[in-house]
Amino acid sequence: MLEELKEEVLKANLFLPKFNLVTLTWGNVSAINRELGLIVIKPSGVKYETMQINDLVVVDMDGNVVEGSYNPSSDTPTHLILYKNFKNIGSIIHTHSVWATSWAQAIRDLPALGTTHADNFHGDIPCTRSLTLEEISSDYETETGKVIVETFIKRKIDPDEISGCLVYAHGPFVWGATPMKALENAIVLEESAKIAFNTVCLNSKVSSLDKTLLDKHFYRKHGTNAYYGQSCNFK
Amino acid sequence: MLEELKEEVLKANLFLPKFNLVTLTWGNVSAINRELGLIVIKPSGVKYETMQINDLVVVDMDGNVVEGSYNPSSDTPTHLILYKNFKNIGSIIHTHSVWATSWAQAIRDLPALGTTHADNFHGDIPCTRSLTLEEISSDYETETGKVIVETFIKRKIDPDEISGCLVYAHGPFVWGATPMKALENAIVLEESAKIAFNTVCLNSKVSSLDKTLLDKHFYRKHGTNAYYGQSCNFK
Amino acid sequence: MLEELKEEVLKANLFLPKFNLVTLTWGNVSAINRELGLIVIKPSGVKYETMQINDLVVVDMDGNVVEGSYNPSSDTPTHLILYKNFKNIGSIIHTHSVWATSWAQAIRDLPALGTTHADNFHGDIPCTRSLTLEEISSDYETETGKVIVETFIKRKIDPDEISGCLVYAHGPFVWGATPMKALENAIVLEESAKIAFNTVCLNSKVSSLDKTLLDKHFYRKHGTNAYYGQSCNFK
Amino acid sequence: MLEELKEEVLKANLFLPKFNLVTLTWGNVSAINRELGLIVIKPSGVKYETMQINDLVVVDMDGNVVEGSYNPSSDTPTHLILYKNFKNIGSIIHTHSVWATSWAQAIRDLPALGTTHADNFHGDIPCTRSLTLEEISSDYETETGKVIVETFIKRKIDPDEISGCLVYAHGPFVWGATPMKALENAIVLEESAKIAFNTVCLNSKVSSLDKTLLDKHFYRKHGTNAYYGQSCNFK
Repeated sequence: MLEELKEEVLKANLFLPKFNLVTLTWGNVSAINRELGLIVIKPSGVKYETMQINDLVVVDMDGNVVEGSYNPSSDTPTHLILYKNFKNIGSIIHTHSVWATSWAQAIRDLPALGTTHADNFHGDIPCTRSLTLEEISSDYETETGKVIVETFIKRKIDPDEISGCLVYAHGPFVWGATPMKALENAIVLEESAKIAFNTVCLNSKVSSLDKTLLDKHFYRKHGTNAYYGQSCNFK
Repeated sequence: MLEELKEEVLKANLFLPKFNLVTLTWGNVSAINRELGLIVIKPSGVKYETMQINDLVVVDMDGNVVEGSYNPSSDTPTHLILYKNFKNIGSIIHTHSVWATSWAQAIRDLPALGTTHADNFHGDIPCTRSLTLEEISSDYETETGKVIVETFIKRKIDPDEISGCLVYAHGPFVWGATPMKALENAIVLEESAKIAFNTVCLNSKVSSLDKTLLDKHFYRKHGTNAYYGQSCNFK
Repeated sequence: MLEELKEEVLKANLFLPKFNLVTLTWGNVSAINRELGLIVIKPSGVKYETMQINDLVVVDMDGNVVEGSYNPSSDTPTHLILYKNFKNIGSIIHTHSVWATSWAQAIRDLPALGTTHADNFHGDIPCTRSLTLEEISSDYETETGKVIVETFIKRKIDPDEISGCLVYAHGPFVWGATPMKALENAIVLEESAKIAFNTVCLNSKVSSLDKTLLDKHFYRKHGTNAYYGQSCNFK
Repeated sequence: MLEELKEEVLKANLFLPKFNLVTLTWGNVSAINRELGLIVIKPSGVKYETMQINDLVVVDMDGNVVEGSYNPSSDTPTHLILYKNFKNIGSIIHTHSVWATSWAQAIRDLPALGTTHADNFHGDIPCTRSLTLEEISSDYETETGKVIVETFIKRKIDPDEISGCLVYAHGPFVWGATPMKALENAIVLEESAKIAFNTVCLNSKVSSLDKTLLDKHFYRKHGTNAYYGQSCNFK
């Protein structure tokens, strides 16, 4: 079932090591078929080099395995919460990519310091608060999803305009309409995190782009007035 | 038309990912035939892996497409302004290369801190002022070109001796007589930006090379008294 | 003799350059057969590219060569001390990997700043004291092993939960139940050291994870209640 | 003539890009036959990818071309001064490798902060003073060699024990008995410079190794009491 979606999820998973976003088996990609209410997700702890399409796991919105012989990613409950709350997203990617994770461990939002960032993200990428001892001890992965959602609600951030979040002392979750768009966002987040690191080392007083330049670059590539590229930028 | 120039532009475009100067589809190379008043430029948002010679777009000095089925790079108006104002340049490269972009985001000139830099650039690489809200909101890419030209005029910098500029919070534009010379300059700018980053981390008080050493290295490779290499250093 | 163990040790040795953990011939892997009291170890100063299974050296617990025509690694006495004192470990890896070595040279424990670290190490990786002049001048490599053991005893660290140590101004020693598990730990230590470097540059006031989050991630993958992955994560 | 020496020099030159020690055509290797008083050196500005054994140039001790159709490296006069003054060295390598060059541009000696450094260099790698305006304006490359020699004499450094030097705002010159040994030293210098950069970022107060540990590691691999490796460590 969902063969086409599985192909896309497999492809995005295999791109993660190619773009240096993961080491070993860290990281995972999922995608949702909203009509059927089913999610395709990477199996837990399986190596990228040998991953096959049939290794992918299909789960329903409650996390029950509908198809697949492996355990789904241990982060599956986080993905479920995000799909339930961010209604327009079609795919989620979690990694421990070095630069985004560095900002998450430093417990700092990733500021939008340049046009590279603004081309894909319409503002700073937020970093969540830490989970409480209670949240960690109960249903950890579900609570991880909830704290991302809480961050976006409390700070009035639109997940369709800022399609990523840094989880406190953990790493990035990134999303998009499709696995390829989520992958593009994961790549740009990592690149932006690296350049932002260098930037703040060179000038500790820089601040986020002002709104005009931020809007200019984001809407050059998104929405009805976009004029960059031909159609889709990354396949 | 312009088949030979297209070959050179394609070749330089394909070198950008090879030398780690671009991620995804960011970055573009153009070249001008000044007799015909025509410019060959990369199409917007097309992937490097599959780019063919016929994907390149030919535009006239007003930016009208003369040949090609794709949209030209969205940065085409910036290239046009530079060709119109810097009379000796034959090719322009724009990238978001990590280290040069880091200096641009830090809003700092890239200082000439060593002979690696001085071999290709006869002094600090300037960083432009920010565009005004009005400039951003009107014809953004044209204004980007204008602010580069303004920077060189106001600071009395010769674009034939310092063949690159950092655009505020954006990234580098680099040029040269030919696509291969512009590529060489783009590579050296990135390498110099990386080494300069490390240098200022190790010693925050270093300053730009004094003029004698700067002249020595630049004129060892440029002008009538050059004695480095055989003829052309990068083909 | 010990052909199977040799295969594993050779494989782990060859993975060291692949994962950028060693330069030239630096670094070595050993493994122990505790029933026979024999250790298989890399020969000293032999190149990885040409290393063959029969180049490996078998030594007894006193360091006497039992099989092999090469000298065993000059670090063999360090390995012996660790096997004698850390009763559950089956394999040891020593490298001069860049990031772990940077922390060792900075004479700082590697703090557990994120879940990447906590997935494999249950707390900070300690850095030893310097050896005394007397220790350096006598049996240097044996004393290096002893100071690691001393560090774990004095600071009450369990070598089964924190399977690595930074040696003062030298580099990391890492271990595990098998060569593949030791390799995984060496990779994660290096990755954690890199991310931790960035983290403290971005925020000099971050401190080690609090115990709840540390426990959560470590025990998600270790012990009787582990629920991450299928069985073994790296083969 | 000197075919065997040419083979070694070519091989070492080709290893420079492989080990990421050079970009474009920067960097050069030479070797001397002291009996004949002849030096084999890389031609100036020739690309590594296409370099052939017959592209190498043979010069005498006065820099006259004895064989070869290309110009010798523009740094040839520097090599000549070093061969004349450092009587035991057989090969010299000059690069603009990123990390060593960063220390040279920061005008700082590279401190011996760990055993990685001490395995090949018996102390800090010195950085020269700047050349005077007069020295730069007269015979620049010869003066570059002279200032290296001056540095070793004034600071009483033995070039057989510390086989490298950082030239002020320029980059490293490294040497050894043979091209392969000089190459090994160039690799270790770059690796040590990178780790030292990280180290001083993590702890600005670290100081060079004390003499006992420095001696221990250096003499473990050099001199009559060496016990590391089998015979030669890098071929």
